[in-house]
Amino acid sequence: MSSNIRIVLVGTTHPGNIGASARAMKTMGLNQLYLVNPKLFPHADATAMAAGATDILENAVVTDSLSAALNDCHLILGTSTRMRGLGWPLQESRQCAQQIVHTAATGNVAIIFGREHAGLTNEELDHCHCQVKIPCDSHFSSLNLAAAVQVICYEIYMATQPSSALISTQEAMPSSEELELLFCHLEKVLIKIDFLNPEKPKLLMRRLRRLLLRQGLLKSEVDILRGILVAVEKL
Amino acid sequence: MSSNIRIVLVGTTHPGNIGASARAMKTMGLNQLYLVNPKLFPHADATAMAAGATDILENAVVTDSLSAALNDCHLILGTSTRMRGLGWPLQESRQCAQQIVHTAATGNVAIIFGREHAGLTNEELDHCHCQVKIPCDSHFSSLNLAAAVQVICYEIYMATQPSSALISTQEAMPSSEELELLFCHLEKVLIKIDFLNPEKPKLLMRRLRRLLLRQGLLKSEVDILRGILVAVEKL
Repeated sequence: MSSNIRIVLVGTTHPGNIGASARAMKTMGLNQLYLVNPKLFPHADATAMAAGATDILENAVVTDSLSAALNDCHLILGTSTRMRGLGWPLQESRQCAQQIVHTAATGNVAIIFGREHAGLTNEELDHCHCQVKIPCDSHFSSLNLAAAVQVICYEIYMATQPSSALISTQEAMPSSEELELLFCHLEKVLIKIDFLNPEKPKLLMRRLRRLLLRQGLLKSEVDILRGILVAVEKL
Repeated sequence: MSSNIRIVLVGTTHPGNIGASARAMKTMGLNQLYLVNPKLFPHADATAMAAGATDILENAVVTDSLSAALNDCHLILGTSTRMRGLGWPLQESRQCAQQIVHTAATGNVAIIFGREHAGLTNEELDHCHCQVKIPCDSHFSSLNLAAAVQVICYEIYMATQPSSALISTQEAMPSSEELELLFCHLEKVLIKIDFLNPEKPKLLMRRLRRLLLRQGLLKSEVDILRGILVAVEKL
């Protein structure tokens, strides 16, 4: 999945930002770095700022056109702190991370970051299916380039975690039947311990469903909860 | 609210990281920077990296002890990429942001960031109510200091945005003490019903903490769970 996600830096002026972006990527498990017309690369500042992520710099693909960096991509997103009228659909970083992870399961995804001072041109944004905005203070929206890369890569990483999404994960998720069995079991035990009155159930089960389903349960967690219910039934 | 949230950098070595942290804060609407024994400050590198956030550097409070920087704080969080055993309750960045915003509505909150290479000492973490971890790749968890500040400030900003909440932010959130009381109560009941063996606790409580904290519990939900535990105790 992560090998299908490329970070594309366009016209980066400061090589330190390239290195810091590589480090930001690696902390979040990404490794495909594309550099379109970097001003200075390779460069000692890039290497210094990459810290332990020099492998990503060494494997970076340098191109002289944005099109070349977007080869074979199914989803292309352009980051921007400014609204550019209504020309491009706009998503916030958190929402688009879900889409990135979903698409990357089967195809390549590119996230494009523009120049430190000028961002992306409208012509460059024309390549994008969608414009991505990192929510920030409207009076000072000038994120450092590598800081923006860090936030986007963090959101992508979070979108792959079971805690943050109901998306494919390493750990098994329960089926909807297993979840319903859990809630039936829970309801039965709550009635048995006189916490839930079946004559006046109020909103208790709905509230407990909302609590447990809000961020998703792992199959292993359903098993623990079922185990606790069995232990209570034995009392 | 934002004026009640302070970012505390301890023993920062590179002044550029202080400037980059100030910039990261300002993009997310925060402005209270505390520096505990910075190696070099003020410094031209800090000013250069702060870009438009030099006002935050100018107003930064420099102290010679961590205690002085934590004066009058109701909630103190220490960031760490490593697990330090079970000495401190652990929260992930997204969950703790909710708690930060909630507490900052009425009192001061400090988020502490350690040295670039060595992080925080155990003695420094002893000041903290909770340890905060930014989820990241287990093979390369070395976030740059200012990048970590950016992620935490971003999550705080997101937690203030109505669009990001999965649930109505009108509903009250529990304090960290109320959450700890819930987990103590849960542990006591699990031992009583013979589901948890205190001789061999394994990872059960940590898994249950992870499950429940991930959902971002409301105060009303903590009350329901406590009520269920009381009902089980009466059996």
